[in-house]
Amino acid sequence: MYGAGDVRVVDVADPSIQLPSDALVRVVRACVCGSDLHPFHSMPTVSEGVPMGHEFVGVVEEVGADVSTLAPGDVVIAPFAWSDGTCAFCREGLQTSCLHGGFWGAGGIGGAQAEAVRVPFADGTLVKAPVSEDSDLLPSLLTLSDVYSTGHHAALKGGVTAGSTVAVVGDGAVGLLAVLSARRLGAERIVLMGRHKERTDLGREFGATDVVAERGEAGIAAVRELTGGHGSPIVLEAVGHMPAYEQAVGIVRPGGVISRVGVPQYEEAPIGFTSLFGPNVTLTGGPAPARAYMETLLPAILDGTVEPGRVFDSTVSLEETPEGYRTMDERTALKVLVRP
Amino acid sequence: MYGAGDVRVVDVADPSIQLPSDALVRVVRACVCGSDLHPFHSMPTVSEGVPMGHEFVGVVEEVGADVSTLAPGDVVIAPFAWSDGTCAFCREGLQTSCLHGGFWGAGGIGGAQAEAVRVPFADGTLVKAPVSEDSDLLPSLLTLSDVYSTGHHAALKGGVTAGSTVAVVGDGAVGLLAVLSARRLGAERIVLMGRHKERTDLGREFGATDVVAERGEAGIAAVRELTGGHGSPIVLEAVGHMPAYEQAVGIVRPGGVISRVGVPQYEEAPIGFTSLFGPNVTLTGGPAPARAYMETLLPAILDGTVEPGRVFDSTVSLEETPEGYRTMDERTALKVLVRP
Repeated sequence: MYGAGDVRVVDVADPSIQLPSDALVRVVRACVCGSDLHPFHSMPTVSEGVPMGHEFVGVVEEVGADVSTLAPGDVVIAPFAWSDGTCAFCREGLQTSCLHGGFWGAGGIGGAQAEAVRVPFADGTLVKAPVSEDSDLLPSLLTLSDVYSTGHHAALKGGVTAGSTVAVVGDGAVGLLAVLSARRLGAERIVLMGRHKERTDLGREFGATDVVAERGEAGIAAVRELTGGHGSPIVLEAVGHMPAYEQAVGIVRPGGVISRVGVPQYEEAPIGFTSLFGPNVTLTGGPAPARAYMETLLPAILDGTVEPGRVFDSTVSLEETPEGYRTMDERTALKVLVRP
Repeated sequence: MYGAGDVRVVDVADPSIQLPSDALVRVVRACVCGSDLHPFHSMPTVSEGVPMGHEFVGVVEEVGADVSTLAPGDVVIAPFAWSDGTCAFCREGLQTSCLHGGFWGAGGIGGAQAEAVRVPFADGTLVKAPVSEDSDLLPSLLTLSDVYSTGHHAALKGGVTAGSTVAVVGDGAVGLLAVLSARRLGAERIVLMGRHKERTDLGREFGATDVVAERGEAGIAAVRELTGGHGSPIVLEAVGHMPAYEQAVGIVRPGGVISRVGVPQYEEAPIGFTSLFGPNVTLTGGPAPARAYMETLLPAILDGTVEPGRVFDSTVSLEETPEGYRTMDERTALKVLVRP
C-alpha cells in the first residue's frame, strides 16, 4: 500500500531464512481484512510501499536450524501477530503482547498478501493443520488467523457463558464470527446490529436471534426494547469507529461489559460519569491473541461443526488484490480470499 | 455549598416524613468526602445553596407506615446512594443504578452534613447497626457509607484474590481503604502511590507492602520496577483526576485491569490502541453499590478485625463544617468527621 486507496502488486526480493528460528512459508491462502480498510481510507502517501496482509495459511518450504516442531511440507496457519512462544506473556496466552514479537508487514517482515513470507519464531508463531494444501477447509482455517479468533476473543473477554444475552455491533466478518463464537459459548439471545441483509442473514445462520438494522438513537432504542428495557449485559464491538463505540455505550446495561475488538480509529473517547463510570460499565478487549485460541478452535472446524469460512464471499488472485480492497470497501464483498 | 470554596451552615426547614416508605433519621456522625472537594474547587456560584454530605450514621426518629425493618431508636448506616431495594438492579446488588433511587442533596432530599435527613425507601436504603449511638465504632461504621465500601468495590471489580499484586493510585481515604480491602481479599503485594507520609504510613498499616511517592514518569518507572518490569496486573484508581488515570494506564500490566472508583473529573480520556486497546487492558469500576457490601463488611468492623475509621484524623462540629472542607482541601486533614 502506497497511500489511501493505492494498493499495488509489485515484485520484491524473495524472502529467505535469516535466523535459526525462522521458517519460510509459501502462502496458499491469504485475505483482505476489515482492518486493512482503515489505512486504505487514511494512510498518508509513502514512496516505499508497506507490505499488506496479516492472515495466511501456507506450506512450510524451509526451516531454520532451531525450528523443531515444523518441517517442509507442513500446512500451517499463521496468527496476525508473530510471537516467540516462550516469554511471560506468551506463556499466559497473551501473544499479542509478546516481548519479542511483532506484526506482519513491519520491521523487515513481509505481509501475507504475497507469494511467500519469512516467519519469525516459527515454533512459537505457527500452528500445524492436519490437512492438505487443497483442502476445502482452508477458508475456515484461514479465519483462525484473525477474524474467527478475534470474534472468539470478543465473546470470551465479554464473559459470554451459557444463557448470556449479547449484542454485537457490526456485521463485518469479525461481527458475524463474534455471533458464531457467542453462540458456541452458549449465548441464548444474540442481537446483531447491521444494515446489510445478506450479512445479517449469515449472522442469523451463525446464531443471531435478532437483527437491528437501525443505527444511532433508533438502534439504541431497538436493542434496549429487545433486551428488557435496560440494555444488553454484554456488548461486542466489532467495528472500531467512534459511532460503533457510542452505539456500544448506548446499548450496554448498567453493570455490563463492552468488549471491543474492532481496532479503535480514535484514541480519546467518553469514559466518564455519564458514559462508563456512572453505570459501572466495564470496557475490555483488544487485539486477539489468535495463537492462544487456535488449538481450541481447530477441532470444530476440522469436524465440520462450525464453518467460519463462510464469511468469504469472493476470491481473487494475488494480482487482483487491489480489486479485492475495492470490493470490500464498497461493501460489495464481505471478505475477500486471496489465492496466490 | 453556594459555589467553589463557599460552604455555609444555614437553617433550613426540618425534614419530615413525606412518603410511607420514608424514615426520618437524626444524624449522629457525618463527614466530608474527597469527592465533596470536586465541587468545592469548581462549582459555579448559585443563589440557593446545595445540601452537602452523603455519608452518615444516625438514629431513626420516625418511620413511615410502610417501613417494616426499622423502628425509632435504631442506629443505622446510610449508603451514599438511596435505593428502593426491590428493582432489578437492587436485587443484583447494583443499588447505584436503582431505577427509583438517587443521591443525597438532590431532588428535594437533604444532605448528610445536617442535623437530620429524610431517607427515602428506608427499608431498601438503610442498614441497622447493632451498636449504641455513643459507640467507639461509629467512625468505622461511617466508612461503610462510602469510603470503605468504595475501596472494597475497587478491589472487588479489579479482581483481587489471594496472592494478587495490586497498585493503588491515591493516598486519600478511598485509596487507603482500597489497600485495606485488597489486603482483606488476600493480595500479597500492594504498592501504594502517594506523597503524604503520614497517609502512606497508615496505608502500610492497612497492608501496603511498598510505597511510591514519585509521580508521572518516575512514578511509573518505580511501580514497574517493583512489579517485575511490566506493571501491575491490577491497578485501583482512587482519585478521579486525569493525571491519576494516566498514571494508572502507565503502570498497568498488559492484560491487566484498571478499576476506577475516584469520580472522574473528565469525560473523554485515552482508551485507544496505545493506551488500553493494544495491551488488552480492562477498564472497570464506578460508584460503589455501598448498600450491597454493608452486611458483608460489617462483622469485621464489629469484632475489631479491621478499623477503617482510622482514616478520620479530625473532628468538627456541624457549625465548623466549612473549616473541615478547608483542612481537607489543604491536606492538613485526611478525612474530617462531622459531629452534629
